[in-house]
Amino acid sequence: MKKTALIMAGGKGERFWPKSRLTLPKQFLSLTNDGKTMIQLTVERILPLVDMEDIYIATNESYKALVKEQLPDIPECNILCEPVGRNTAPCIGLGAVHIQHKYDDAVMMVLPSDHLVKYTDIFTDTLTTACSIAEQGTNLVTLGITPNYPETGYGYIKADKSISGKPSYPVDRFVEKPDYETAKAYVEGGDYYWNSGMFIWKVSSILTDLSLYMPETYAGLQKIGQAVGTENETSILASVFPTLPSESIDYGIMEKASDIYLVPGNFGWDDVGSWLAVERIRGIDENRNTFTGNVTALNTSGCTIEGKEKLIAAVGLHDLIVVDTDDALLICSKDSAGDIKKMLEILRNEGKDSYL
Amino acid sequence: MKKTALIMAGGKGERFWPKSRLTLPKQFLSLTNDGKTMIQLTVERILPLVDMEDIYIATNESYKALVKEQLPDIPECNILCEPVGRNTAPCIGLGAVHIQHKYDDAVMMVLPSDHLVKYTDIFTDTLTTACSIAEQGTNLVTLGITPNYPETGYGYIKADKSISGKPSYPVDRFVEKPDYETAKAYVEGGDYYWNSGMFIWKVSSILTDLSLYMPETYAGLQKIGQAVGTENETSILASVFPTLPSESIDYGIMEKASDIYLVPGNFGWDDVGSWLAVERIRGIDENRNTFTGNVTALNTSGCTIEGKEKLIAAVGLHDLIVVDTDDALLICSKDSAGDIKKMLEILRNEGKDSYL
Repeated sequence: MKKTALIMAGGKGERFWPKSRLTLPKQFLSLTNDGKTMIQLTVERILPLVDMEDIYIATNESYKALVKEQLPDIPECNILCEPVGRNTAPCIGLGAVHIQHKYDDAVMMVLPSDHLVKYTDIFTDTLTTACSIAEQGTNLVTLGITPNYPETGYGYIKADKSISGKPSYPVDRFVEKPDYETAKAYVEGGDYYWNSGMFIWKVSSILTDLSLYMPETYAGLQKIGQAVGTENETSILASVFPTLPSESIDYGIMEKASDIYLVPGNFGWDDVGSWLAVERIRGIDENRNTFTGNVTALNTSGCTIEGKEKLIAAVGLHDLIVVDTDDALLICSKDSAGDIKKMLEILRNEGKDSYL
Repeated sequence: MKKTALIMAGGKGERFWPKSRLTLPKQFLSLTNDGKTMIQLTVERILPLVDMEDIYIATNESYKALVKEQLPDIPECNILCEPVGRNTAPCIGLGAVHIQHKYDDAVMMVLPSDHLVKYTDIFTDTLTTACSIAEQGTNLVTLGITPNYPETGYGYIKADKSISGKPSYPVDRFVEKPDYETAKAYVEGGDYYWNSGMFIWKVSSILTDLSLYMPETYAGLQKIGQAVGTENETSILASVFPTLPSESIDYGIMEKASDIYLVPGNFGWDDVGSWLAVERIRGIDENRNTFTGNVTALNTSGCTIEGKEKLIAAVGLHDLIVVDTDDALLICSKDSAGDIKKMLEILRNEGKDSYL
């Protein structure tokens, strides 16, 4: 069966401010040493499995130019612009009706645009396995990342491992972000996986589940789907999409559907959730520092410093994140990386919107 | 008797990098809110006592343009350029022979160019007292700052307070920077004062003491003095001055001479010895922060942040010094303020001389 992909690229990526901005979210940035942006790497990773003309990008109008610039080989009609953000369920539904318009049915991979994968060969193999399971029936398939520490910032998926040694497991349940003790028990138990937000299914499977568990959304999507390729496509999308309830695919479908399979993923996944990820991606020196740009340090450890031409002299610093851009400089203790969104709120309140 | 002043302005002020540079030392910077530079404030402070044409500036050739720019009313012939730095004794001697050339004898105040004084009226009164004592004989007079905490970074002067209630005391001895326990005892005892580096004497008095305690230097200074106003002035200065031994006035004269008086100073003196001084000068907010420029902070305390137009967003920071300039950014823990000189050494070794 034809393999297609929907890459979700509508996020704002505020946690990577000030390198990311409202006009340049995280997925359009390069955080690796190869100079390729996150969304370029996402496309590159699936090209062994999916033809370029079968890759769809869901984003919003203001990022369309960025997508075209960074991914010039993606057909323009595959760039799906959501009129407003409505979380992942309507976004995925929009992709599904477009693919259905083209192929009637096909395997559809749903992938975030702002994650990194270290071992792309293993990733390809894992996706291949997931595709073959998705093709076999009406299954929904998700990639579950084997956890290697008790992360409290991710959702987890419990697999039913009563029959062991299989390339996939039936999903027992999806669980919300746990507290530390619970996360520790999850990691030690071996039945729980990180929810990667990567899904594989046939278009017919997800549309059936949407009709069952989100009938209102399904009805709206049908209207949108019927208009694809007609002169009314844009106007119908603009009038119907904003009426769809804002809902995540996890809550709207995955937590309710039966017949979900999990394929364990061990391909060096990183959701690049904050500046703290940079040291994992780029590696650290003997003082646990990660420096980019013109940095000179003395008695400094555990610091991530991201600069450009300007000299950054660090003296006696520990566990800080420093990000210097042309018009804004962030200095943030690692403990406070989660407060960057709060800082953006303050800047908004202070009328400093031009920096957002 | 005519009152004159020698302002010493040859220092590099490295501890204020990156705002101070080799081409723009601390005395030529403004650190107060009035926009006036340290050397401008120094001149302004003594104008109630000294005519502009009797103020001499000792500096070096590379700072002459800065002096002329910042102090356009000082006669150019009063800007004394040392061919090389030879510490304070030869510098003061150079001033003395110039003043002697002009007035035969006069009261001479010797003042650093990079200190701040909060209460200028009290400063004027104290200087007036010191001048009258200096006039009375061959005394050397120094201003001793009444210490209000056990600072270990200053030299101290022990006054002989056996006869109390006088506007000045005979100096018992000069002592080097003490350890903390010793400094504590000094402050509690009440006989010790901070060595401010401000001296008042007649030109004839200091020249006599130079002839007694630094005869070699004195002989060289005589040659230089005899050439002042002649066509050979520059060439003699260039050939003789570098041969003078490098020596501080404290070690060369003050620690050896008898007949030294101390006038206690309580005029809000600050030697502005490092970035740590900025919070004393500018004051702190309710979170003990001192911000200049476009700064927005969240959960940040005890930080001195010195920026300009660029937005500086501080998140979860404590006890840091941040100084942002066009081409260099310093981030330094307050505990490490003393290591800034070491950082400059590293930059020099890395070939980053252009930032010094």
